[in-house]
Order: sequence, then structure tokens, then C-alpha cells
Amino acid sequence: MAGGGKGSQIGYVHRSAAMRDGYFDLIAGAFDLDPGRGRAFGVELGLDPDRCYPDYAAMFATEAARPDGIRCVTIATPNNTHYPITKAALQAGIHVICEKPLTFTTAEALDLQAIAAERGLVVGVAYGYSGHQMIEEAARLVADGTLGEIRIVNLQFAHGFHSAAVELDSPAARWRVDPASAGPSYVLGDLATHPLYIAQVICPDLKIRRLLCSRQSFVASRAPLEDNATVLMEYDSGAVGTCWTSAVNAGAMHSQKVRIVGSRGSIEWWDEHPNQLRLEIQGEPARLLDRGMPYLHPQSLADDRIGAGHPEGLFEAWANLHYRFALAIEAHEDGDPARVADLRYPGIAAGVEGVRWVETCVRSADAGGIWVDYV
Amino acid sequence: MAGGGKGSQIGYVHRSAAMRDGYFDLIAGAFDLDPGRGRAFGVELGLDPDRCYPDYAAMFATEAARPDGIRCVTIATPNNTHYPITKAALQAGIHVICEKPLTFTTAEALDLQAIAAERGLVVGVAYGYSGHQMIEEAARLVADGTLGEIRIVNLQFAHGFHSAAVELDSPAARWRVDPASAGPSYVLGDLATHPLYIAQVICPDLKIRRLLCSRQSFVASRAPLEDNATVLMEYDSGAVGTCWTSAVNAGAMHSQKVRIVGSRGSIEWWDEHPNQLRLEIQGEPARLLDRGMPYLHPQSLADDRIGAGHPEGLFEAWANLHYRFALAIEAHEDGDPARVADLRYPGIAAGVEGVRWVETCVRSADAGGIWVDYV
Amino acid sequence: MAGGGKGSQIGYVHRSAAMRDGYFDLIAGAFDLDPGRGRAFGVELGLDPDRCYPDYAAMFATEAARPDGIRCVTIATPNNTHYPITKAALQAGIHVICEKPLTFTTAEALDLQAIAAERGLVVGVAYGYSGHQMIEEAARLVADGTLGEIRIVNLQFAHGFHSAAVELDSPAARWRVDPASAGPSYVLGDLATHPLYIAQVICPDLKIRRLLCSRQSFVASRAPLEDNATVLMEYDSGAVGTCWTSAVNAGAMHSQKVRIVGSRGSIEWWDEHPNQLRLEIQGEPARLLDRGMPYLHPQSLADDRIGAGHPEGLFEAWANLHYRFALAIEAHEDGDPARVADLRYPGIAAGVEGVRWVETCVRSADAGGIWVDYV
Amino acid sequence: MAGGGKGSQIGYVHRSAAMRDGYFDLIAGAFDLDPGRGRAFGVELGLDPDRCYPDYAAMFATEAARPDGIRCVTIATPNNTHYPITKAALQAGIHVICEKPLTFTTAEALDLQAIAAERGLVVGVAYGYSGHQMIEEAARLVADGTLGEIRIVNLQFAHGFHSAAVELDSPAARWRVDPASAGPSYVLGDLATHPLYIAQVICPDLKIRRLLCSRQSFVASRAPLEDNATVLMEYDSGAVGTCWTSAVNAGAMHSQKVRIVGSRGSIEWWDEHPNQLRLEIQGEPARLLDRGMPYLHPQSLADDRIGAGHPEGLFEAWANLHYRFALAIEAHEDGDPARVADLRYPGIAAGVEGVRWVETCVRSADAGGIWVDYV
Repeated sequence: MAGGGKGSQIGYVHRSAAMRDGYFDLIAGAFDLDPGRGRAFGVELGLDPDRCYPDYAAMFATEAARPDGIRCVTIATPNNTHYPITKAALQAGIHVICEKPLTFTTAEALDLQAIAAERGLVVGVAYGYSGHQMIEEAARLVADGTLGEIRIVNLQFAHGFHSAAVELDSPAARWRVDPASAGPSYVLGDLATHPLYIAQVICPDLKIRRLLCSRQSFVASRAPLEDNATVLMEYDSGAVGTCWTSAVNAGAMHSQKVRIVGSRGSIEWWDEHPNQLRLEIQGEPARLLDRGMPYLHPQSLADDRIGAGHPEGLFEAWANLHYRFALAIEAHEDGDPARVADLRYPGIAAGVEGVRWVETCVRSADAGGIWVDYV
Repeated sequence: MAGGGKGSQIGYVHRSAAMRDGYFDLIAGAFDLDPGRGRAFGVELGLDPDRCYPDYAAMFATEAARPDGIRCVTIATPNNTHYPITKAALQAGIHVICEKPLTFTTAEALDLQAIAAERGLVVGVAYGYSGHQMIEEAARLVADGTLGEIRIVNLQFAHGFHSAAVELDSPAARWRVDPASAGPSYVLGDLATHPLYIAQVICPDLKIRRLLCSRQSFVASRAPLEDNATVLMEYDSGAVGTCWTSAVNAGAMHSQKVRIVGSRGSIEWWDEHPNQLRLEIQGEPARLLDRGMPYLHPQSLADDRIGAGHPEGLFEAWANLHYRFALAIEAHEDGDPARVADLRYPGIAAGVEGVRWVETCVRSADAGGIWVDYV
Repeated sequence: MAGGGKGSQIGYVHRSAAMRDGYFDLIAGAFDLDPGRGRAFGVELGLDPDRCYPDYAAMFATEAARPDGIRCVTIATPNNTHYPITKAALQAGIHVICEKPLTFTTAEALDLQAIAAERGLVVGVAYGYSGHQMIEEAARLVADGTLGEIRIVNLQFAHGFHSAAVELDSPAARWRVDPASAGPSYVLGDLATHPLYIAQVICPDLKIRRLLCSRQSFVASRAPLEDNATVLMEYDSGAVGTCWTSAVNAGAMHSQKVRIVGSRGSIEWWDEHPNQLRLEIQGEPARLLDRGMPYLHPQSLADDRIGAGHPEGLFEAWANLHYRFALAIEAHEDGDPARVADLRYPGIAAGVEGVRWVETCVRSADAGGIWVDYV
Repeated sequence: MAGGGKGSQIGYVHRSAAMRDGYFDLIAGAFDLDPGRGRAFGVELGLDPDRCYPDYAAMFATEAARPDGIRCVTIATPNNTHYPITKAALQAGIHVICEKPLTFTTAEALDLQAIAAERGLVVGVAYGYSGHQMIEEAARLVADGTLGEIRIVNLQFAHGFHSAAVELDSPAARWRVDPASAGPSYVLGDLATHPLYIAQVICPDLKIRRLLCSRQSFVASRAPLEDNATVLMEYDSGAVGTCWTSAVNAGAMHSQKVRIVGSRGSIEWWDEHPNQLRLEIQGEPARLLDRGMPYLHPQSLADDRIGAGHPEGLFEAWANLHYRFALAIEAHEDGDPARVADLRYPGIAAGVEGVRWVETCVRSADAGGIWVDYV
């Protein structure tokens, strides 16, 4: 693990999800910029002190040389370091599970994609919500034509936790609104790429043709990074999409919602109540589908950990993805990546797409909110 | 009453709301293009057969000449007739309550506004939802600063009843998608102007500076009229807005929702459950406000007809507006319009604004979805 | 109208609902114990001053003697007067629409039933919620076997408005907790009889065999009248039921809910959102049915006043019942009561049943909460 | 671990929760009645084959003799074995985490309590839902007087999964409706004891004085075990309670709900959406409290694993309890049980109480649904 040291919540989430099902063990780490603190934290987690490294470069060099060296690294560091650390890991022959955004630019992301392809390595990206069972069900409902032809994709991830300039007092918020560490965007990259990826999972055939983005910095000191943005999208098929993302939706919790409208019906999913999926067929009563129920598609039930009615949470979603990362890593190490061709998980392509989308949104917004082709 | 004949649901709603509190009586009508059928219907409603007219021109001429002639006419005819009928009524010295859109063009709407001003007549426009008590409460919460400075206005009116080409079989749907009778838009005018007016009531200080509209005809035969549209708005104050309107949101009922986000908190209202208003202050638990409760502003409680807990519906909202129309008419007839200056009701200015907004949206959409100044 | 004078909300509801569709006119009244105030109020409502009576006896005597005398009286007075006023009206040959409870004792209620039968008169009882369209749909779903065999009936009407001793300051609350004016119970009669009647409408075949009631006076000064009670019921068929009713369910609005569980599925209805009905079939996703939708039974749609999606409220429910009262009165006056045999409305039998149920509950509670046969 | 072998969902839940935070390791097991299958399963889980035992007796004997022997055993076997296995474990000096019900009779439960006390051992009982953060918050709101004096406790755990005789085809369901393996009750013990314990956590001062239970076997072959029951409770303080529990609430998922009504306000919690708690103060808007928010009591936030807005599920609740079990075990091993006196977890007293409550309910029901003193 790189990053995710003492006090890091996201580090805890990664470790907890990765080790949940026994597919991953934590055996080495470069947890902290302060080597002593990093080592202490690693020891606290039960690691061999010799495998608590002062930095990622040392970790990759030493571990790559060990016969029992790490096979995969989880990167939970600030955004500006994702590219160099991932690149270094891949160059050392180590699989990667990386926080999003993968990089700041599409060019960098494509660079990583090329290296990973060449070395036969897996890069998993932390679109954790996509591991929820009902996302799989949504994808199946679209694939089997229940909704008809897809017309409209409405995405939203709009919380209110940063309605005021909380970064003045909170270091955890501060780096997110500083272009040096956060990259070219705040909420577009930090929040909107989540429902964007979910929409890609549910509607894999939709390709964005052009988009338009309007972004604002309601807390002025955050400029040029936005704390609110709206994106319009047009797809090749004639479908249209919108995405609202915000950190100043005052009083809202997550409000991550995905609604897919087809010619026959719609589905709607809300991440705060992830065990339910609303299915609305025009002319019929709305239906509330529940996780774990026998009426779901068998593939949706594959990840079931506990009976219907019992709530699963984000940890299970994230653990489901780690199981698939493990399968993918194994297949790649066996030289048989084809056997996971149908496995749904956020890989390097999803990482590239997220970066490209943010980059395109920023280009549109900075040109005054105009339509730009999506290439 | 002009229009609203046999089988017209909107005619029933108008009559039921107008007569609910005894402020209006139905004493004359030109209910139908077929004079015989119109007369028969009028008689069925209890009217004097002599006051069941073959057309509106005859009605206005005859009634204007009677000492006990009608003082106000309700116009519930297809869109293309609103302008001439309203104009004729005003010229005959008769107050008007008209279905929206008031006209097809802003120029026509301004023409009506000028005549009404000159003659001292009231023109009420059928933005019926705005009569709900919780809209008043929302306006009070904004006015007293509970939400802080307004940043974001999110509007939605998106049903799915016309997901398929129902107009092939339904005359009631057919005229709505024919530019000759419906005007330059379908859902923008028919649906979106409702939440637009509600937002104006709640946030009277917000002035649109420019907007951008993207519209689609998912049922292709409806082109150039749209069955789906998204509008982005920028206000003078720096606030931004979005509006999604649709008749192809398959499986959805009304989905008319208004969310107003300020620097301190947000409110959200949904027309299908109009007796509730959600108030979310950042850092506090979300609150569900209920109609009729003593914690509301006294002005919000002024319209109360029945104890809290009991649901009121659209008829009460619409009746509340008729009460205000009656007060406004009385004030104008008394030559004292100033005394209703603070009375909240959708008058001619609201009618003009709705037409201007639709016209601007269409101009933007037809130019490829570009930003256009709002003038 | 008897009672329902100035400031009476229930009087307003009765008048508004009765006159909504033109089936009733208000032509006479004894509105107030204070004759002058009652007359003034009647005149304000547009009545002939000669037909504003000092008391109900005078009204019945005079009106019965007029060729154009009233044919029906609405009784909206405190509970202790329902019996004598209804009896006097029936003896004068006048149909009655009475607030519940009809009487204090089953013997009195049966007395009224006998007189009404003998005179061929209609007695409608104010179970207003039962006029909601979705109650009709619920009844149809049970009748057509959608739920299978009925097993469980769960009823609830539990608000919190009287959590404190508000009667110290509120005359409107005071008489409800005084046995002299309210009768042998408070919440059992005032609240619980509403869902009880709705359950009878939905499940007409269920007959209570025995019941058990436990009641409390959490505001001690209300004793012996209860402000909270729970009733267990056993039906002849083997089905069981519960009813929770309260005026001290602090913080709750109405919470009137009816859940009917069968061997195959369940329905649930909530009076605060009366346009929806939840249908849950075991092994299938829960369904949300909406008023006005074509998938409802045709009989449920018969009362439709406005398109689906638009909320109807209590006034429409109550007006629907008045339409049926009018049909029933007409049939009885025509000497053909058989033609309304299938018309669903709360008549004298429902009134008797409510009184009997309350009486039985009180008997059980006062004996220590024991099972008593329902006879 | 005893029981919880291949295919056991509850076994997976126990292991997953226990090992979540590193406080427990799985090092020995008697997973299956079939020793070979049990050993194979243990090996699959990574256990030393020598510590996969053919039965619990062998496990306790051998492990107790090892210096590195197990310190705690999780018992996830059918109900009829809980007593002997727990007793054997305690006699071998091993702490226990046991599925409920702890035993079939209060006498047996008290026997275990005496042994545990004498040996200074911890017995944790699997009331997993009580580990949700919002239960802690509910307890704090009651403790600090926010609700006023508690008047009413309404409990519910009523699903519909066994509306039909699914036990004919499902072995997992079969033993639950067989008195030999399940004990004297089905839903009272299997479901109702969960909200009962939650109510005890929230309202520790309420002591049941007497209760009355009515139970039914709607699937007749289940008699004498009930698949539906209602319990009325009276507390020493004058408060009253109800509990509805069912496996034939057709179409319902869990429907585990706890509502506590006080003189000033109420709280309501629903296990299917466990991250929210509804707080209703009479005369104020209802509030929706969300897990992880700074406005909660600090003690409620102590268990936080991930930011507010992200859903936690049953696994986190259950893992929270295991953390406390670990603390309790450590304190007892240190000979200092007093230091966990304030730690909230379901211990032996909760286990005894659950058995006593079920026993009393059955006694009441079998006597015809009469009031029986709670002793």
C-alpha cells in the first residue's frame, strides 16, 4: 500500500475491502511522507518492520527483488502522485489498484494504459460504488431490453459538505481545492466520475459524441477549481445525458443518483440506499427491487453475502470489486487475460475514460460553456 | 368561460376551483366549437340557454352590453387561441383567467399586457401549482434568509405519459404536438413554465441573464416540437439554474420538483406530495415541514382549509389562486390596484415571462444549443 | 345543517364537500347555540335569514312543513347531540349525514337504524377517508383474490397533537376528553373508527369474533377517556387484526395506515399520501400504484376528477361520498333502495358498527384488557 | 467456531464480522456434523487440519489443553444445541459468542449465567442489529431527555418470506418450524427478540410488568410453533408496548422497526435503512438524522468507519459488537470486568432476557392470550 496512513479514512476502506475475503494480504507499505510515522503505523497494522518503507520507490525496488514480493499495490495518495506512483509500480511489474483520478491528463492515462498492456498488468480504479449488486441488476435490465432503447441518462453526485470554505480549517479538504495537488478540477473529478462510470457499466453501448460543461466556484477562493458543475452530453445514438455535481448542495448528504430512461421504462438508483433499485415501466406501477431477491438476474445475485432485507453497504461493494481485481490479476499472471474479458470491474480503460471526461469538461467550461467534441 | 366543454378535464378543474369559495359564479359560456353541443353542455351546467354562446366573440359582445354581464372570463381553449380570445376579452372590458401559454410570442404577450394596463384589467394565468401553501412557505424561507444567498435553482417537470406516440390515438395529445395549435414548443411551454413560475415566486430577486437550451424529439414525428429538453440558466446574481422537462421520462408520474440551494441550506418541493416541504440546513438533520403546522410562517397558514395531516390537493391550490384573482379583480374595479400589490398570484407579468422564456429557449435550441442573452 | 358554525373547520369541510358537485345546496341551518350568531353566520353564507334557525327542533319542524323544505341535514355538532338530533331529523322525514360517532351506545344506534329503515331514509356517516379512490382499488384487489386469503389486518391512526394537556387552552380539544360531550371514549371513537371502517370496506367478509382492548390516559386528567389504545381482534375466518390509536404519538402527523396481509400478498395505504397504494406480492418487487392510472380497476377510476400525477386530497374523498349519498337519497326517495345496494358509502350499518366496536373495546379495557365476544 | 459450515450464511456473517478488525482470528473449528466435510471446510478457510475437530466436545477438550488454545468460541448451530455447547465451552473456560436463543428455557439460561459469572467468562449473544450506530444515538436521545418521559414502545419484525410452506423444500427453513430443533417458538424467538433487545438498549429503565401474547400458525403444519404473533406489554413505569412479529407478512422484506414515543417526541428506526434515524418532536418538523454527522452524540460517532452519506450495513453493526466483545473478553481475562461495565453489548443478561420473554409469551399465548406477570 502506498499512502493511506494513520488517520486516513480512505486507507482504512481500501484495506478493509481488500482483505475482506482473503484474496489480498497486506504485507508491505509506504504509508506516510514521514518515514518514522509510516513505519509505526505499519507495525501497528501487524507488518514486518522491514517492509514498512520510507517511500514508494524504495518499496517497489525492494519488493520487486524479493521472491515473495508484493504482487499488487493499492495507491491512496493525493491526486498529483497517482501518475508517477502507478507508473513506477507498473515498471516494477506490480499490479495496481489506484484511487481516482488516475492522472491529471489523458495523455498520462494513455501512457499508463500502454505500459500496463505491454507488461500484462492490471490497473484497477477505485470506482467503489460500482460494486453494488443493484448496479449489476441495472446493467442486466438494460441489456435484456426491459427499458427499450435508451434515451436519457441523468447523473448526479451533489453533496453540501463544502458549502462553506471548510478547507480553511480542514487539511483533508484543502488539497482537494488546490490545483497543484488535486488537478484541473474538484467536483467533476472527485464526485462526477463515480456516476459517470456507473452509467458506463449500465449502458456500455453509449458513446459520448460531444459535451458541454458549465462550472462555478461558489466559494470564490476555490477558483479555478469548481465546487459546482453541470454537464450536458450527447451520445452517438441520439441519447442525451446530464450530470450535476456539487460540493455546495447545502444540506444534502451524497445525493448520488443515476436515472436511465428508455423508450419503455426507466431505472433509478441512489447510493445512500444502495440495496434498492426503482424500476418504472410506462403504464405499470413503479417497482422497488431489493437486493438478494430471487427475482433478480442470477448474475446480480452472484455477489450476495447475506439474505435479502439485510442491508449491505459500501464496504461490500468495494469488497466485491476486490474479488474481481483478484480474479483479473490471477488471469493476467496466468497469461490468460481473455478469461476475464466479461468480468465487470473498473480497469485501466475506465480510468482513462474518467480523466478524458474531466479534461473535456474543463475545456468546455473554460471556453465559456460551449459544446466540444468528445475525442 | 371560453372552451372547457364536455369531456374537458381542465374545464372541470377551472370551474371547480373558481366556484369553490363562492367568489365566482358561472353565468355564461362559449364552451364548444359546435354551438349546439356547447349550448347543451351549458344547460347541463345550469346556465341560462340564452347565455350559452356559439363563440367567444358573440359572448363578449352580448355580455359586455348587459348590465349584469360577465366580469371575468376563463379561457380553457387550445394554445393558438389564447391570444385572440384574451385580446377580445380585454377589449370588451372583461377580466381574464387564461390557460398558459398566454401567447405564442413575447410581442403578443406584451401587447396584452399593454391593453390590460390601459384598461385596468386583471389577467390571471393558470400556474395552478403555485397556489400550494408550501410554495408560500418556501418563499418566506428564502425571504427571511434561512437559506442564505441563493446559489442554485434546479427545476424539473418530467413525466413519461407520452413515451410512445400516443397522439396517434389521442386527440387530447395530438394538438399539443402540432405547432399550429400548440405553438413553438411542447414540453417547455406545457410543463417547464410551471416550475419556472414557482421558482420566480420563491426567488423573486433572481433575474436570468442568459440561458442555453437543448431539446429533442424522441418520438420523431413530433419534430420540431420537443418532447424532452434541458435548460441551463445563469442569473444576474451569479446563481445558476437548470431545468429538465420531458414527456418521455418513461414510467414517471409528474416528477415536478423544485430545489433551491443557498449558501446555508436548501429547500425541495415535489408536486405529487405537495403538503410537505423538505428543508435542509447544512450541518443539521433534514427537516420535513408539513402543511398546516403552527411552525410555518403565518402567511403560509393564511390559506389553510383543513387541519394539518389532512392532505390538500391541486384543487385547493387552484382555489387559493382564484380567491386572490377575485381580490385583484375587486381592487382593479375599485380603481385601487395598489392594494393588491403584495398579493401573490400569477398575473400578466408571469404570463409574459413564461412566453419570453420559452421563446428564448427555442431560439437557443434551434441555434444548436448555444448561450443566448435573456432579454 | 346543524352545527358547523363560525370557526368550525369540520363544518367548512362538510359544506365544501357537499356542494362541490352541485348535488346539494345549503338552504337552511341551525349553526350555533347562540341564535344570533348562528343567524349572522347563515346570512354570511348566503342563506335566507328566515331559514337560519335558533335550534334544530325549530328547523326540522318548520322545514318539514314547507313544500320546499330541506331533504337532508348534515349534523356537525358535539358527539353527545348526534343521537337526539339524528332521531329528530328522521322522525321529521329528513335524511341525515352525521359526524361520527353516531351515538354513545349500540342500543341508540340500533334505534336510529330501525327508524331509518321504517321511514326509508338514508343516514350517511362521516367516514370521509373511505372516499379515496385507492380504498376502492384496495377493495377490488382483495375481492379479485390478488392477495389470496386474508390473514392479518393492521390498523393505525395515531397522531401526537394532544401529547400535552392542550385541552386546558383549547375548547376544540376540551369537549373531546369530557365523557359528557364525547361519550365513552376519546381516540377509539374519534380516530380508530376511521381505519376500522376502511378495513370493513376492503375486507367486507371479515367478521370480528372477539376482541381485546388496552387503553391508557397518558395525560391523567383525561381518565377515564383514553388518549392511547391498542386493540387485538380475532375474526371468524381465523384472520387476526390489531389497531393502534393515539393522540399522544408525539411528533406524528396522522399516521393513519391500513395494512392488509393475505396468503399471497399485502396492500398498505397511508392517509397522508392518499393517492398511492402499495401492493406487495410475495416474491415480487413491491409495486406503488398511483391514482388515476389505467392499470387500476375501472370502478376505482370512476371517481377520477383530474389526471394521474395530480394529487387529490381529503376534500375530493369527502365529495365522492357526498355524490354517493345523493344517489342513495334519490334511490330511497324513489322507493327503490335496491338500486344502490352495491353502492359503497358509509351508511347507518357502518355507523352502528362503529358504535358497537367502541362499546366493546371499552368493555374489554375496563375489565382489565380481557377478551370479550363481539356481539 | 462451532457450526457455521459450508453453505451456512450465518457462519459467514459471524466470521466476517469477527475478523473484520483483527480482534479475532479463526484458529479452530467443529464446523459440521459430518467430520470429513467439516475438516475440508476448515482447511478451505486456511485452518490447521489438526484443529478442525469432529465435534465441539473434542474441540473444547483439546483446545483447552493447548497453551495457544482458543479463548473464545462462536456458536452458530441449530437452536437446540446452544445450551449444551455453551455450557461445555464455559466449563472448559472458553468465552462464548452464541446465536440466539441462548437456550429453550429460562432455567437453562440462568444456569449458563451462573457458570459464566463463576468462571469470569463472557457470553455474547448475536443481537447483531444492535451494533448499528443509530441505535446508540437513539439511546442517547432517550437518556438525555430529548423525548421526555417514555410512554409507548412499538416493535416490529415482520417479513413475508415464509408466507407459504417453504419448509417443505428448504432445509434451512425446516428446522426453524420444528419444536425439537427450534424450541418453543418460531418468530417470537427468531425475530422478535431482536427489536426487543434494541428497545432494552434504548430504554434501559423500562421493566416489563406483565404481557399478553396472541400467536397463530397460518401455515397450519407449523403448529404449535407460530408464524405470526402480537404481544402487548405493560411496564412498571406505566409505559406500554406492542410487538408484532411475523414470517407471513406477505411481500414485506424485514420490516424491523422500533418506535419509541415519549411525552415530548418520538424516534423511529428501520433496519433496512439503518443509517437513518427519524426524530419527531411534537410541534416541530420531523428530522432525519444521518449516520456519521457531527450533530450526533460523540458516543454514537465512536464506531464510525466511513464518512457520512456512505451507507454502512449489517456487517459493520455486527463488527462493532465484536470489537466490544473483544474489549469485554480482555477485561474479564484481566480480572477487571468493572472497566467494561458501561460498554454496550448483548451479553448473558440479554440472552437470559430474550429466553424469559419468549417463554412468557408462549405461556400467555397457550393459555388463550391472557395477561401473565413477567417474572
